[in-house]
Amino acid sequence: MKTYKEKITFKSTAQVEFIDVTDDVQKVIDNSGIRDGRVCVFLQHTTMGIMINHNEPMLLQDFMRVLHRLAPSDERYSHDIFELKKRNKSDGRSNGHSHCKAMLVGTDIAVPVENGIMMLSDLQSILAVEFDGSRERDAIVRVTG
Amino acid sequence: MKTYKEKITFKSTAQVEFIDVTDDVQKVIDNSGIRDGRVCVFLQHTTMGIMINHNEPMLLQDFMRVLHRLAPSDERYSHDIFELKKRNKSDGRSNGHSHCKAMLVGTDIAVPVENGIMMLSDLQSILAVEFDGSRERDAIVRVTG
Amino acid sequence: MKTYKEKITFKSTAQVEFIDVTDDVQKVIDNSGIRDGRVCVFLQHTTMGIMINHNEPMLLQDFMRVLHRLAPSDERYSHDIFELKKRNKSDGRSNGHSHCKAMLVGTDIAVPVENGIMMLSDLQSILAVEFDGSRERDAIVRVTG
Repeated sequence: MKTYKEKITFKSTAQVEFIDVTDDVQKVIDNSGIRDGRVCVFLQHTTMGIMINHNEPMLLQDFMRVLHRLAPSDERYSHDIFELKKRNKSDGRSNGHSHCKAMLVGTDIAVPVENGIMMLSDLQSILAVEFDGSRERDAIVRVTG
Repeated sequence: MKTYKEKITFKSTAQVEFIDVTDDVQKVIDNSGIRDGRVCVFLQHTTMGIMINHNEPMLLQDFMRVLHRLAPSDERYSHDIFELKKRNKSDGRSNGHSHCKAMLVGTDIAVPVENGIMMLSDLQSILAVEFDGSRERDAIVRVTG
Repeated sequence: MKTYKEKITFKSTAQVEFIDVTDDVQKVIDNSGIRDGRVCVFLQHTTMGIMINHNEPMLLQDFMRVLHRLAPSDERYSHDIFELKKRNKSDGRSNGHSHCKAMLVGTDIAVPVENGIMMLSDLQSILAVEFDGSRERDAIVRVTG
């Protein structure tokens, strides 16, 4: 059993955005030469989530509306009252809502790999979900098998 | 270290339903012969989630009520306005809310295995959560150890 | 490739609380002697969740407020109407809301390990989220590499 790791990079162009990284993850599997095993994608970010679902633009808009209702961006977050924060330096962004949305979506996913390709169904894509863009972002892709 | 993979199948009988697959997953571990390691369960579906919690019927009803409030089935989802969708063929189901619920629950879980059994506590079961049934469903179970 | 497993224990001191277990998880990696691979943290609890985000006290308070709105503790849960439960013995705690919050957060996370340390960014901590304390709690930490 061997392991191969690579960092993929991508760019978000809006404050809130779904970025399909399925092909980038597949490329890492190709580079790994691993035929059977598992691929993990891990984010080192706290205002971005990663998930798997249908990359259908209207649906993703629906889901963003759901997340907006769960953690509205126009509500007041203590995280954004910079005067109150003592222990941590502020980065100057009002992104309390972005962190909360990211916590609901999560920071890692894993997919089984067979014959060198991910066992995703036709409707499944790996989506990095930007909640505080636009920014340069990356993800650690780890293949084991 | 070796790996064993098997697909388990099950059937949902209602539009919304919790299916306890704990025994099916344990059977795959038995078949694998692996004593110590880890088991992963991965769904190839976009309107079904997988999670671990207490299989107590009243509690699961409570959780379904919570999810219904987060992504109500009687609300309008752009995904379901078939006239607006250009890139993807519609499957004719109004299941925008089902996708959104599935995205909140997630598509994969992992449990450590010791002496051939999953390290679940007495209150924990592995639950596949159907949001757009009734249908034939399956899950990929992968044991490594 | 080898595997090392250890149980970490900690104590929650309030009904609702975020417990930073990053250092405890790192200690298990140190004990394992594994330099490159992956660490998994798995909870055997049904009213506690595990996640990764920024350990900033005001932000965590914001997230708890979001979760409280999603599954309010002052609402009626069927799980807590002990007279209705037939199949399961009640433990006497009104914790329907705690289970629901735990289901939204999840029971396992995985982080890649490089040169003996977790590949977390400066803002990331591993947080066990207590929804029904105060209690003695634990988590299974499994390192593979």
